[in-house]
Amino acid sequence: MDMSTIDPNWPHVVIIGAGFGGLAVAQQLAHAPVRVTVVDRNNYHLFVPLLYQVATAALSPADVAEPIRHILGRYPNIRVVLSEVTGIDAGSRQLTLGTGERLDYDRLVIATGSTSSYFGHDEWRAYAPACKSIEEARLIRSRVLGAFEEAERDGAADREALMTFVIVGGGPTGVELAGSVAELARYALASDFRRIRPETARIILVEGGPRILSAFPESLARYAERALARIGVQVMTDIPVETITAEGLTAGGRFIPARTVLWGAGVAPTGAAALLGAPPGPGGRLAVDDRLRVSGVANVYALGDVAACLGEDGTPLPGLAQVAQQQGRYLGTALRREMVSGQMSKPFRFHNRGNAAIIGRHAAIFDFGRYRLKGYPAWMLWAIVHVVLLVNFAQRIRVSLQWLWRYLTYRRGARIITSAPARPCKEAELSD
Amino acid sequence: MDMSTIDPNWPHVVIIGAGFGGLAVAQQLAHAPVRVTVVDRNNYHLFVPLLYQVATAALSPADVAEPIRHILGRYPNIRVVLSEVTGIDAGSRQLTLGTGERLDYDRLVIATGSTSSYFGHDEWRAYAPACKSIEEARLIRSRVLGAFEEAERDGAADREALMTFVIVGGGPTGVELAGSVAELARYALASDFRRIRPETARIILVEGGPRILSAFPESLARYAERALARIGVQVMTDIPVETITAEGLTAGGRFIPARTVLWGAGVAPTGAAALLGAPPGPGGRLAVDDRLRVSGVANVYALGDVAACLGEDGTPLPGLAQVAQQQGRYLGTALRREMVSGQMSKPFRFHNRGNAAIIGRHAAIFDFGRYRLKGYPAWMLWAIVHVVLLVNFAQRIRVSLQWLWRYLTYRRGARIITSAPARPCKEAELSD
Repeated sequence: MDMSTIDPNWPHVVIIGAGFGGLAVAQQLAHAPVRVTVVDRNNYHLFVPLLYQVATAALSPADVAEPIRHILGRYPNIRVVLSEVTGIDAGSRQLTLGTGERLDYDRLVIATGSTSSYFGHDEWRAYAPACKSIEEARLIRSRVLGAFEEAERDGAADREALMTFVIVGGGPTGVELAGSVAELARYALASDFRRIRPETARIILVEGGPRILSAFPESLARYAERALARIGVQVMTDIPVETITAEGLTAGGRFIPARTVLWGAGVAPTGAAALLGAPPGPGGRLAVDDRLRVSGVANVYALGDVAACLGEDGTPLPGLAQVAQQQGRYLGTALRREMVSGQMSKPFRFHNRGNAAIIGRHAAIFDFGRYRLKGYPAWMLWAIVHVVLLVNFAQRIRVSLQWLWRYLTYRRGARIITSAPARPCKEAELSD
Repeated sequence: MDMSTIDPNWPHVVIIGAGFGGLAVAQQLAHAPVRVTVVDRNNYHLFVPLLYQVATAALSPADVAEPIRHILGRYPNIRVVLSEVTGIDAGSRQLTLGTGERLDYDRLVIATGSTSSYFGHDEWRAYAPACKSIEEARLIRSRVLGAFEEAERDGAADREALMTFVIVGGGPTGVELAGSVAELARYALASDFRRIRPETARIILVEGGPRILSAFPESLARYAERALARIGVQVMTDIPVETITAEGLTAGGRFIPARTVLWGAGVAPTGAAALLGAPPGPGGRLAVDDRLRVSGVANVYALGDVAACLGEDGTPLPGLAQVAQQQGRYLGTALRREMVSGQMSKPFRFHNRGNAAIIGRHAAIFDFGRYRLKGYPAWMLWAIVHVVLLVNFAQRIRVSLQWLWRYLTYRRGARIITSAPARPCKEAELSD
């Protein structure tokens, strides 16, 4: 199919967001007689599940980000637009972009994902960055490495607080961050300093609920807690966070002096519901039916973290890459069938491919529902799955090589501080 | 040698700057009975000769930056301090750091390098970033990629200016930037857009003097001009820049509309002379004798771009990595001999290992004085030399692999836009 064969009368599908869900929809519509426009505010698809490795200096930003045009450039019927979306008019089926451009659509797919949420305490954001974007990952990297540098200074006043790292939130994100910070301190930085011993850093994982990894079976969570303890992570459960300041965090009535606090606790759907004017569904997500149609809004679909799609047990499916990807493949195929041959597809069904969390070198957990896996085999499986999942072949080589290298040497390749580790962080740093 | 065997009475050598020169001094003093402190404002050694590849999305920042602690961490007698230097008191042999710390020294080595210079037009900096730091390289990458994105927008007002890239300065830096931008547009981005054809971008190299690459023999410069023309770079000589604004550049009385202007024209030594209170030598550099001693200041040495060290022809040696590295090795050995066994070394002599510039794929020039090389063999030699020069083995594997990959596919791995390509750029962006 040549670009000149694109018919301007073909129906137009607009997809907002080039995450796992949005990309999958677009790829299913490649080479079909429809026009597709993918709108994203970034020029890259972000492999969020590995972002914590950028935050802890194991990978470079470009290792987990792939230009969207690079992925979709080969399909003549797909156009990519780099922009924010500022308005959706579902009545006239029109989108307004931050660039001023307007886009008419026949079908609209909202796949804008989620953002970090501070449970109403937005003032914590400055002291406890989350790890949802490249900018945030880079900020965390600078803060963590900067704290060791500050502690190394002669006469550092606050060495204990500088060498204490608190991670808030005992879900997979918090566990992965805590494990990775611990390994950075214990192995990668171990022989680099003269005044401090990085391996003595305190890494504390704070969870408000009764146990970490509440989405996993208890036996796996217990294993994870032991594995974390082995690499020096102290797990504190049942202590809700009360305040976070530049000096540290108060949780469960107790003040922990810590110059570095990382946020792995909450996510919230992006503001697409507000743009659409639809009433927000469970957890603020867009309520969709079993064909991913947004309730009450014709020709608009939603999937991934932004959508509340009920699973077989009647609760919304979790915000996982595999959910978004399966929904995207389903919706792309369904839209193609409907628009090209007028066929209606069966409802969407989620197939659980296993839920994983990595604690560190040789330690991970995998939950397949009926089967469970932990330790070295789970880690190996996790590593293989994540390398294979990476979008692009070049990345596959590079990431495998870096892993292999790190595995053999305990080194980290991306240990550069490029934004000032100032604290509290300014708005400019976060929005950069 | 164990850390506990470091004698606090050993003489103390302080090195400011962990570039090619400073690092070489430190490495020569490793395992000698001296205490060494390396002070740098960044936590990484930067491989500046490859920085233009970060600016044009071929490499990631971490590929050209290596943590200083990683390089020097294995030597117990070397300490690394991450800080600016705010004062030098040569009388009392004391340094003041930005952190407030004071350092007494017995010998001081100034190896702070150079910074970009706008010939008194600092207002151009906002419109024409130079490529001397990771932050600047990242800014250039965002601007160049952002210009294509803006041009792709429906109804882009200024498509011609968006698709015009002007590089100021016909030295090796300007030539390398121009060639690399041209290859990015012609190969890496070629099939990625729908409304524009990146391969039709205008890339203009503007030189104030009568020819480009004035430090090279004329035959090589002529070859470089032909090679640049082949990949679509227009070379304009004898036209001095008059103004640079957000809309474009006026040179030789002519206005060129261009939304992206890059600065490869001038460098100036860092402000070490001012800190030291020594009268600036040729070109504002610190005047040093043939043993790299700063004229008129006892126990202070300078080398690399910040020092004006006269070559055999009586003119200052050029600001090249190989000059700094040779001087560093010389000075480290000389200091060790002097402090350990009281021997005086012979004066420093520079051995020209060949001067290179790369134009693009398969096209480079090499000048060895008596011998000259151009085209494919020069390119091959350049690639091998630069891979070998990279400090660290891990980087060697990674960079070679990325080159191999780019070579086979014309792709670029680091094409992510992470700082806003706003224009004119704010101070915050540059200092980020």
